[in-house]
Amino acid sequence: MILVSNDDGIYAKGVHALTDVMTVLGEVVTVCPAAPQSGKSMAITSDTPLRIIQTDDYNGAKMYKVNGTPVDCVKIAMHTILPRIPDLVVSGINHGSNASVNAVYSGTVGAAFEGCAFGIPSIAFSIADYSPDACFSHCLPFVKAITETVLGKGLPDGMALNVNFPKTLADNACMRVTKGCKGRWTDEYREYTDPNGKKFYWLTGRFVNEEPDNTDTDEWCLANGIVSIVPVALDRTVHLQKDYFYNH
Amino acid sequence: MILVSNDDGIYAKGVHALTDVMTVLGEVVTVCPAAPQSGKSMAITSDTPLRIIQTDDYNGAKMYKVNGTPVDCVKIAMHTILPRIPDLVVSGINHGSNASVNAVYSGTVGAAFEGCAFGIPSIAFSIADYSPDACFSHCLPFVKAITETVLGKGLPDGMALNVNFPKTLADNACMRVTKGCKGRWTDEYREYTDPNGKKFYWLTGRFVNEEPDNTDTDEWCLANGIVSIVPVALDRTVHLQKDYFYNH
Repeated sequence: MILVSNDDGIYAKGVHALTDVMTVLGEVVTVCPAAPQSGKSMAITSDTPLRIIQTDDYNGAKMYKVNGTPVDCVKIAMHTILPRIPDLVVSGINHGSNASVNAVYSGTVGAAFEGCAFGIPSIAFSIADYSPDACFSHCLPFVKAITETVLGKGLPDGMALNVNFPKTLADNACMRVTKGCKGRWTDEYREYTDPNGKKFYWLTGRFVNEEPDNTDTDEWCLANGIVSIVPVALDRTVHLQKDYFYNH
Repeated sequence: MILVSNDDGIYAKGVHALTDVMTVLGEVVTVCPAAPQSGKSMAITSDTPLRIIQTDDYNGAKMYKVNGTPVDCVKIAMHTILPRIPDLVVSGINHGSNASVNAVYSGTVGAAFEGCAFGIPSIAFSIADYSPDACFSHCLPFVKAITETVLGKGLPDGMALNVNFPKTLADNACMRVTKGCKGRWTDEYREYTDPNGKKFYWLTGRFVNEEPDNTDTDEWCLANGIVSIVPVALDRTVHLQKDYFYNH
C-alpha cells in the first residue's frame, strides 16, 4: 500500500500525476490538504480539530481531503484512514521547486519527513514550474524508477529523498544524487498601505544561489536539465561538534 | 543587537525571561507572534498579509507582535523592523521540551533555523515544562553562558543550537553537547462526534523514546536533570549517500 500526499491540495494536477504512477506500482490511498498548504514545512495542527472527507476515487485510488497541513494529512492517514501501515509515502508532485533552502519551508518535503518519522520509506517530488498547468510527463518515468528502487531497497532509517525535476529535461536526460545548494531568499516583503492608512506586508522575494559554480548541487542540476535527488535527514543533529563548548 | 523571538507568542512568560537575559548582553528587539504558534515548524505565511504592531517596551527592549508564524517574525524583523542585521537570534524560552523529534515540529526551533538561514548565529531555548507559569530561574545562568559563548565564538555556517532545559536541575548541574534522541509520537488523534453526527479529530499523542538506554541523547539529559545542547543543521542533506542509486 502506498500513501500519496502533497501540499498544493487535493485538486492539484501534480498529485493526480503522482497518483497515476503509484497505481501502477500498488494499492494507493491519496490523502491531501483540502486547500493549498504551500510553505507549511512540518507544521502540525493542535489547536483546532481536523475533519476527513472522502472524495471520488481517482484511477483506482481512494482519495481523501483533510482541513490541515501536509504533516496532518500523513499523521491522520496513519492513525485513522489507512487499514495498515503503508510500504511507502510519496508527496507531490509539487508545483514549484523545493531545491536548496526551499526544502526547509516546503510542505511537500514536510509530508515526506513525516512518513520518515513513522519509519516508512518516503519521497518528496517537485518540479521547477509553479504553473497550475505544469507538464509532468517528462517526470513520470523518473518517478516510477526512483519509487521502484526505494520499494525494492528501502531507505536508511531516518532518511527521505527530496527529488526535484527541471521544467524540461536536457537532451541526455539523467538523474543525479546531489546535495542541497547553499542559497537564501532576499527582498522578502512588499509594503502596502490599507484604506485606513495602516501598513501591511506581503511575502515575496528573490532566490539567491550562493554557490552557482558548484556543479554538485540540486540547483545546478535543475539549471542544467538534470533530475536532482537529495537524501535528507529527519534528525537535525550535526554530529562531530562535541568540541565546540569544551575546547575554548 | 540581539533579535528575540518565540512560538508561544508575545505574552508568554518564557520570552520575557529570555529578553531579561539578553538585555544584559546587548541591545534587544523582541518580535513574536501575536498569538501562540506552537508546532508551526518553519511554516511561512504567503497567502495572507502580515501586520506589525509595536507594544510597550519591556526591560529596555523594544517589543513587536506580528500576526504570523515564528519564521515570519524573524523574516519581517530582518526586512522591516530592525535597523541592521543582528549579531544573534535567540528563540524561546519555549514552554515545553523541543528535544528529540519535537525539534522538527517546533516553531521555536524554526525561528532559530530562520536566523541561521540569514547567516546569523542562532539559538533555540526550551524547558521541559508546558505550564504557562513554568519557572525559568534555573535556566537563566545557562542561557547567559551559552549565549556569551556563541556571541564570542560564532557558530559554524548553517548550524544553530537547540538547547533544552530540564524542569529541575540535578544536584551537580551541568550542560552537555549531545544529539537528538530517536523517538516518535503514537496514538495521535482523539475521535469525537459533533452534534450533527459527523466525526472530527484532535491531535494528542504520547511520546515514545526509542533509545531510552542511550546516555548520549537530549532526552537522557532532560530525564537526568542535565541541560542539553544539540547542534542542528539547516541543510537537510545527508552526505555520503551517493552510492545508494549507483551500486544496486
